[in-house]
Amino acid sequence: MPGDLLLAEIREQPHALARLLEHEAEIVELAETIAARSPAVVRLVGHGTSDNAASYVVYAFGILAGWTAFRDSISLSVYYDAQIDMSDSVVIALSQSGQTPDVLEYVERARARGAFTVALTNEPESELASSAAAVVPLSAGAERSVAATKTYVNALAALALLAAGAAGRGAELGEGLRRTVDLLEGSLDTLQSAVPAIAVPMAFVGRMFVIGRGLEFATAREVALKLTETCRVAAEPLTATDLAHGPVAALDSLFPVWTIASPGETLPAVVEAAARAREAGATIVASGSAADAIEGASYALPMPEAPNPELAPLLSVLPGQLFAWALAQAKGLDPDKPHGLSKVTLAR
Amino acid sequence: MPGDLLLAEIREQPHALARLLEHEAEIVELAETIAARSPAVVRLVGHGTSDNAASYVVYAFGILAGWTAFRDSISLSVYYDAQIDMSDSVVIALSQSGQTPDVLEYVERARARGAFTVALTNEPESELASSAAAVVPLSAGAERSVAATKTYVNALAALALLAAGAAGRGAELGEGLRRTVDLLEGSLDTLQSAVPAIAVPMAFVGRMFVIGRGLEFATAREVALKLTETCRVAAEPLTATDLAHGPVAALDSLFPVWTIASPGETLPAVVEAAARAREAGATIVASGSAADAIEGASYALPMPEAPNPELAPLLSVLPGQLFAWALAQAKGLDPDKPHGLSKVTLAR
Repeated sequence: MPGDLLLAEIREQPHALARLLEHEAEIVELAETIAARSPAVVRLVGHGTSDNAASYVVYAFGILAGWTAFRDSISLSVYYDAQIDMSDSVVIALSQSGQTPDVLEYVERARARGAFTVALTNEPESELASSAAAVVPLSAGAERSVAATKTYVNALAALALLAAGAAGRGAELGEGLRRTVDLLEGSLDTLQSAVPAIAVPMAFVGRMFVIGRGLEFATAREVALKLTETCRVAAEPLTATDLAHGPVAALDSLFPVWTIASPGETLPAVVEAAARAREAGATIVASGSAADAIEGASYALPMPEAPNPELAPLLSVLPGQLFAWALAQAKGLDPDKPHGLSKVTLAR
Repeated sequence: MPGDLLLAEIREQPHALARLLEHEAEIVELAETIAARSPAVVRLVGHGTSDNAASYVVYAFGILAGWTAFRDSISLSVYYDAQIDMSDSVVIALSQSGQTPDVLEYVERARARGAFTVALTNEPESELASSAAAVVPLSAGAERSVAATKTYVNALAALALLAAGAAGRGAELGEGLRRTVDLLEGSLDTLQSAVPAIAVPMAFVGRMFVIGRGLEFATAREVALKLTETCRVAAEPLTATDLAHGPVAALDSLFPVWTIASPGETLPAVVEAAARAREAGATIVASGSAADAIEGASYALPMPEAPNPELAPLLSVLPGQLFAWALAQAKGLDPDKPHGLSKVTLAR
């Protein structure tokens, strides 16, 4: 049935995460190697879902280790050949397939400029893996659906472990990740039954904003990408603050807003943004473990609270993934075969 | 008439740019002060149009000076209170009004953590200006339209001068900017007459992608923001490569794509992305000085070539600004009073 592949891989996520955790010790060891170099900056590169995971690690490294991490420009090094000194840099290159051409090229150049390079890939025998100085295997098992799901959650987990390991908190986060496996497993059935009732009335939707902030901006980006590629919705991710700086003007009752609400420092900004969107007439969907903090939401897809606040994004992406699957069904689309896409993207 | 304010400020841009150039010497001097500190990184912060200008300077600093510049997370410092050492950092904070609350808070924290802070603002008497160690006055004159235009172009110019000054190329870029004043002035009438013929048939459009890469990604972001806030179009900016990594699946003949085409290293990626969008049935609008390189475009809004490749974004934003003005007219909207927005955004 159309969407079976996507659904199977969404449901496989707890197992995939457990498989990654078999590599916990080696990831924490790599984190210690990196920490010993005291890098000035961590440069993150990837496209699509990999780039969304990179958004997460900006916060994970900042919060857990006090490090500066940022999503680097690939074109600056690869196309403009900018002469940037990378001797104090650690590079983490993300690619499910390990074949993304400009990510590969970036890693080769970064290595030549003195960076310590790490490949995060589901294909540890890939060209990217052999180009980098160190490899973190995503261990998600073969991902056949074009829309990535389990490799995303495993990338977040691996990156959280790297950040925590660098801060000497690897064991604590490892324990949190083991509890996350159970929380994911325990949420699947309830959510899968809940999403069709939201997807059917939203089948008419052509455009949507997905709002998150801080750690959860990665979730907003990833949910928006799933909706765009599998459901053909123009879903744009925005931080809660971005919304107020212009895009709120486009909202009305035909333009729903999906909010990612997790407890913590950035929740007030998300609550405020949702209120502003509601005032403009937008239908609100609230997801995440603080979904009930969003007032005036027409639909809610709550999740259990994460064992560690830094791990919330591993849980809060699940409602969006399952909703994308259900919305594609409601629209008669096959999310396993998105129009014009293939699993490995070789485009510039 | 609705839109008169926006149009007047778009048309005032050459004069506003000339006013900024009266401060050329002091901006170059500041660049030399910054260069003498040999910062490890340049951290850029701002929201909305200011954040779009920040996208530009990532490339300007990288290409012209070989420096690492990135759009820093505001929430990491302001909300999460991440303990990041900024003693080797230069911060450039962008805010037209100089009042954006979390940008202000970021600057105060960054200063306390050892960063050298620069405020780029149109209000040199603002709180932001007094908080920062140095100020670059945007000198655009009062901007009354909610949708920023002349402060954007002046921000790009000031940032280009800072980057070039840091690389000892201030005089060269200053000369290029003076020629840009004339090129902008010379393009206004032709473009203003050309845009209504494109805006009228596009009045039905609900969603759009705006594609640029490298230096021109800032232009894509800024054009998308103008269309979203003044015309209520769900216009999402994407790099040429982002498009291929998922969003292309959403395209069809109801979903046009605006492309920013300038000569240089990233043009082939934009040409390729446009071809892919055309294949999916999307109507293509080609803008920029390499507009004729985009095959199958239904509409073209060419611009003259920039005196220096790094200055192309100052010219290529003009067609998008004028198109947003014309599209708002065609849709019966008042771009001077976007729904739910005010000139100074105080939201978190």
